[in-house]
Amino acid sequence: MTHDLTPTPASFHRASSADTADTALSARAAEQAATDFHQRLAASRAPLPASVKVHEPGVLHPTLRVPLREIALTNGERIAVYDTSGPYTDPAVATDVRHGLPTPRADWIAARGDTETYTGRPIQLHDDGLREAAQQQALRAQSESLSRTPRRARAGANVSQMHYARRGIVTAEMEYVAIRENGRRAWMHEYMADTEREQRLAGQGLGARIPGFITPEFVRDEVARGRAIIPANINHPEVEPMAIGRNFLVKVNANIGNSAVSSGIEEEVEKLVWATRWGADTVMDLSTGRNIHTTRDWILRNSPVPIGTVPIYQALEKVGGVAEELSWPLFRDTLIEQAEQGVDYFTIHAGVRLPFVPMTVKRRTGIVSRGGSILAKWCIAHHRENFLYTHFEEICEIMKAYDVSFSLGDGLRPGSLADANDEAQFAELRTLGELTKIAWKHDVQTMIEGPGHVPMHMIQANMTEQLKHCDEAPFYTLGPLTTDIAPGYDHITSGIGAAMIGWFGCAMLCYVTPKEHLGLPDREDVKQGLMAYKIAAHAADIAKGHPAARSRDDALSKARFEFRWEDQFNLGLDPETAREFHDETLPKDSAKVAHFCSMCGPKFCSMKITQDVREYSANLEAQGGQPPLDGAEASGGSADAQALGGSADAQALAGMREKSAEFRAQGGELYIPIRQA
Amino acid sequence: MTHDLTPTPASFHRASSADTADTALSARAAEQAATDFHQRLAASRAPLPASVKVHEPGVLHPTLRVPLREIALTNGERIAVYDTSGPYTDPAVATDVRHGLPTPRADWIAARGDTETYTGRPIQLHDDGLREAAQQQALRAQSESLSRTPRRARAGANVSQMHYARRGIVTAEMEYVAIRENGRRAWMHEYMADTEREQRLAGQGLGARIPGFITPEFVRDEVARGRAIIPANINHPEVEPMAIGRNFLVKVNANIGNSAVSSGIEEEVEKLVWATRWGADTVMDLSTGRNIHTTRDWILRNSPVPIGTVPIYQALEKVGGVAEELSWPLFRDTLIEQAEQGVDYFTIHAGVRLPFVPMTVKRRTGIVSRGGSILAKWCIAHHRENFLYTHFEEICEIMKAYDVSFSLGDGLRPGSLADANDEAQFAELRTLGELTKIAWKHDVQTMIEGPGHVPMHMIQANMTEQLKHCDEAPFYTLGPLTTDIAPGYDHITSGIGAAMIGWFGCAMLCYVTPKEHLGLPDREDVKQGLMAYKIAAHAADIAKGHPAARSRDDALSKARFEFRWEDQFNLGLDPETAREFHDETLPKDSAKVAHFCSMCGPKFCSMKITQDVREYSANLEAQGGQPPLDGAEASGGSADAQALGGSADAQALAGMREKSAEFRAQGGELYIPIRQA
Repeated sequence: MTHDLTPTPASFHRASSADTADTALSARAAEQAATDFHQRLAASRAPLPASVKVHEPGVLHPTLRVPLREIALTNGERIAVYDTSGPYTDPAVATDVRHGLPTPRADWIAARGDTETYTGRPIQLHDDGLREAAQQQALRAQSESLSRTPRRARAGANVSQMHYARRGIVTAEMEYVAIRENGRRAWMHEYMADTEREQRLAGQGLGARIPGFITPEFVRDEVARGRAIIPANINHPEVEPMAIGRNFLVKVNANIGNSAVSSGIEEEVEKLVWATRWGADTVMDLSTGRNIHTTRDWILRNSPVPIGTVPIYQALEKVGGVAEELSWPLFRDTLIEQAEQGVDYFTIHAGVRLPFVPMTVKRRTGIVSRGGSILAKWCIAHHRENFLYTHFEEICEIMKAYDVSFSLGDGLRPGSLADANDEAQFAELRTLGELTKIAWKHDVQTMIEGPGHVPMHMIQANMTEQLKHCDEAPFYTLGPLTTDIAPGYDHITSGIGAAMIGWFGCAMLCYVTPKEHLGLPDREDVKQGLMAYKIAAHAADIAKGHPAARSRDDALSKARFEFRWEDQFNLGLDPETAREFHDETLPKDSAKVAHFCSMCGPKFCSMKITQDVREYSANLEAQGGQPPLDGAEASGGSADAQALGGSADAQALAGMREKSAEFRAQGGELYIPIRQA
Repeated sequence: MTHDLTPTPASFHRASSADTADTALSARAAEQAATDFHQRLAASRAPLPASVKVHEPGVLHPTLRVPLREIALTNGERIAVYDTSGPYTDPAVATDVRHGLPTPRADWIAARGDTETYTGRPIQLHDDGLREAAQQQALRAQSESLSRTPRRARAGANVSQMHYARRGIVTAEMEYVAIRENGRRAWMHEYMADTEREQRLAGQGLGARIPGFITPEFVRDEVARGRAIIPANINHPEVEPMAIGRNFLVKVNANIGNSAVSSGIEEEVEKLVWATRWGADTVMDLSTGRNIHTTRDWILRNSPVPIGTVPIYQALEKVGGVAEELSWPLFRDTLIEQAEQGVDYFTIHAGVRLPFVPMTVKRRTGIVSRGGSILAKWCIAHHRENFLYTHFEEICEIMKAYDVSFSLGDGLRPGSLADANDEAQFAELRTLGELTKIAWKHDVQTMIEGPGHVPMHMIQANMTEQLKHCDEAPFYTLGPLTTDIAPGYDHITSGIGAAMIGWFGCAMLCYVTPKEHLGLPDREDVKQGLMAYKIAAHAADIAKGHPAARSRDDALSKARFEFRWEDQFNLGLDPETAREFHDETLPKDSAKVAHFCSMCGPKFCSMKITQDVREYSANLEAQGGQPPLDGAEASGGSADAQALGGSADAQALAGMREKSAEFRAQGGELYIPIRQA
């Protein structure tokens, strides 16, 4: 296995601070940046501890190889978990970001015979926000190895997964999704074997219907109904297919992308790889700065997860930031540009309608969506209806020719608690419901974006309204934040709302990082945001009663209880941090088999004491026998007898009573050596 | 204002690592540790940015001075918020941890005339886990300035706040609480003036009944009913009184305390001050290592917040860690020792009953409560009922003589999702309900501890059961954690559950730090835990509809929208971190008035664009006039007319239409200078 570490050109590296953004980099700084980049990329690629990449084969489509991560525990168990990190963490695959990832889907797409390759739209200077042809030539020269010939639907064809599904076809992507969602289940059996426990913990799906085992046919049906989408542009053959829908695992999106005051291409590629390492199911490239087109090439060719964009951003860059200059022809051209590159879903703010804009005037924080505010400005300046709304069916024609999914934007989402669930927000949602019907007329896969900032008691209403108006199209929210008073911690304020709305039926959660409201996130922020959101998504899966969710918690709890520290760390979302935190106070290797940690020390560890109690009880049961009362507390004794009656507990305790007397007679040594796990 | 920075003795400083715990410190290391300590303490004392300590006077008790923190905004607003940080952040008060805090309650207690001072129980070697009298003398010599003469109730008297409340007496503590809970409300009026907004956002109390304004009489009534407690031992006159109850603000507890493998006295004092700085409403000293008694003296004399303990820990230390050697006489003596020092509430695991212990045998993680596991071991070894249960009324007699509140321990709480809401857990809860009735017979203030690890869909049942069995005694949970898969992030896994159960009626939330399950928290962990829990508590207050909660969110949102960056930072829970995060990418002072940040840059800032849209709309409205259609999109125009009808929106947009034409005629310059806020 090799990973190419040849440094990339200096032009790709971010200026070291916002202040030098417009000045030339010194050669030394660029060289250092290149080295840093490759070191970080190498770190992003190392498999997680005790983990190997395994693959499940297809049945209907035998060439499928569906990746999972398998964690080897010290007691011989092998725990398989869902894995978004792509080939980067597979030592068997050599990756080089300058050449892009392998393309598992290419054959499936070609085999369907309903697409054709074509020349594609020629790149234009304004695609990268450049003025000089020479600048773009230099940029493109370094990206040449990433150039691809685009595909599109043959005349009259519709290549969306929904179109296939509605014609009864189970595509390779659908089977891949089924296999991936099931994962490997055999290891879970011991954790689900206790019927009392399973009944006690049975989830509350609140309308979700998650089958015990997902079949390719089930996936087809969900996609045909519009209740799930498989975002997978025919020009993104690198994607490892995944599904977004309330009857599947709750998914998480991470946002990357530069802005005018920060970040370069390589940093964005590195954030992509880093994000997939930590569990991002999709990634949105929200770049608004320079080199948008080329940055996107690098991201798409190197992304194993679906990529979403907000095309209005690039369109705005093309008109020099003057919203009023936006037009349908420019936007249409941008959609085609991005569809040819392989973007899997577009956020389209077609619900920001002219009559709704005045509804935002009395808001506390107006319109907080970038796209929403841009479109609102256009509407007001022209006094015309939003051109995304008026040209919506033409957008559908483009989407279906490449299988780009809609993410119908919540441009009028509330940006503060004060604006939650207001008139503007729900007016837009109703429009998104209308547009969903139109999209489905064209078999275009569609999901619906949602808020935002919503107090806990108003979150359920959002789910209810969305289900009512959008016919169970998947919901995709940003949080919501449940309070506004904690800038710096908005991954937590929103993680609370995200967990709740995930339980209520939201299919994908767009993460929020600690930098929300303050600045562009760096890679540490990306990780912190992902940790909060993987937690929220998993907590939601458990509450919904997803059959495959709680076993990982149980395996980790078992490891914890048995003091298998390494296993506890390795089963966690972030094994390295867990180990590091433990080692801050107990760094020696001997501490990894210690039956305590520094929280309580050896005498007070409740888990150790519980072990003692169980061993003791087990010994007593094995002995059986008559129960003499402990004379000193006769009243205590009769209370026991009353409490216990004739139950099995009484028998166990009767045995204990005898043993207690015997034990004391022998000297009262209670510290039983803990057997090795 | 002065803060004494004379170094404290070397014996107080923690060994620099667990490995040297039993070896002598070099003089130099001790000196450095002392310097570090004082520097950190100084940092803990600086007022938060733009903040001053203000005091509200009493009316019934005119000498009351109830502290609040007032934040000065750049636009002249003064935002008053609840303040737990005590005199440390008051530049007008000189504090010295070797002498303890001022004692505002001393006069109130003396004036009630129902207590007497007395010699108190002589300190014993095993109180500090020492063997040599000389060791203890050295320790006590350095703590001499913290020694106090204890009080107790006169013969036949009951000095609990509940006893006074039930006799119709409004104590100084009750009035203090009322004033504190109300805070200053005048600044909130502008944020609550919009009736549509208030109706839309009206909370869901789910059985809570929070009045618009809290009177001392209301406090008395809540305490008399047992629905709230004011934990305030007569021997803790330094406490700034506070209430715990579902009809008050949701409170947060932070845990500090050493263990056998970590931490020293000074570090614990510093954690205390640090915790109150970041919003801890109470603090529990959970020390299990050396010098427990002396550590507690230092903590109590320096704590402006109530202090809780788990007396069984110290009792276990006294018997050398051998749980079977515990006895009622030893425990009783420990209760008196701690009550004389001034502990405000005791966790008493009287619900860990002998017949319940076998119910834990089939659990995934047994008994995770330290106290619970210790008592379970004792029960099994002796085959006797838990002595805390059998001697419960005698415990009540002690509590009422000092006004120590019960925190009835959840020794059988679930330590993993797999064990949530099981038989053992609810059997204990029912017992706690019985014990509450007994405690109330003695007018002993009581709260009930709760879980633990509970999936989201099972959290409400915990609240329901607790309300059913415990007659609305305040509930005090640890989280709960909503998933087990994220060691290193359990402040987040549990923050989700805490926010939800706080909404459902839980009165106090015991924090969880990132170190949970891994080791003893350090000061950064304490802060991270507090941030997550202040978020959870505040989100709960908002969802419940607490009248004073959402205004802070609104003030911050307004500052954000108006680009008053300093105000946005200063209104947050952690102003310094928010500022630091912003400055990572935009450090210059000019950025603090910039109408964008590095997330989107100047062209894409939605808030800026919204401002533009509003200014533009406002200008148009002011102009009025006939609306010529924009000829290019007649269809768009008629759609508008349809959409708008004859509403006020139509008028506004009609004006805009004219202005649009005018505007373009003038050259189409849309960038309107933003007026200074």
